[in-house]
Amino acid sequence: MADRPEGWEARGKPPTLFRRFEFTRYSETREFLDALAAVTEETGVHPQNINFGTTYVNITLEAAEGEEPGDGEWSLATRINALLPPGN
Amino acid sequence: MADRPEGWEARGKPPTLFRRFEFTRYSETREFLDALAAVTEETGVHPQNINFGTTYVNITLEAAEGEEPGDGEWSLATRINALLPPGN
Repeated sequence: MADRPEGWEARGKPPTLFRRFEFTRYSETREFLDALAAVTEETGVHPQNINFGTTYVNITLEAAEGEEPGDGEWSLATRINALLPPGN
Repeated sequence: MADRPEGWEARGKPPTLFRRFEFTRYSETREFLDALAAVTEETGVHPQNINFGTTYVNITLEAAEGEEPGDGEWSLATRINALLPPGN
């Protein structure tokens, strides 16, 4: 796929989509997490796992059980990328 | 220590404090995460790692570098327990 969103990779079998986001300070991490929660609530689609510390957020998206990640997951990944402040 | 907060265990070497919280639905998970963020912002103490999905939150607290978890970490663990709705 030529238009896969930047920074995401497929991992595992069946694959999940994974990306690590890094930030300079906690306030940026917090803003990103809050924006991510708003997307989750709006779409009703929940990442399989979100793992964060002071200056990083790791996100794993999974497809429906037994399926490969499809347009829905890639589209969510693209939308999550768009939450980043310019320059990240 | 007789008064260690319920559900937390020391893990690793040097030990971190760890507890898994489980919820029935995402709205409960979300409320817990929001309350946890408020405590983090008020205290300025950041858990080393928070790992969550739709209905669980795993929290790891670490001591200052090279030290064992002390009163500060146990006290934060107690405070986090107090964020749970009654009955959890």
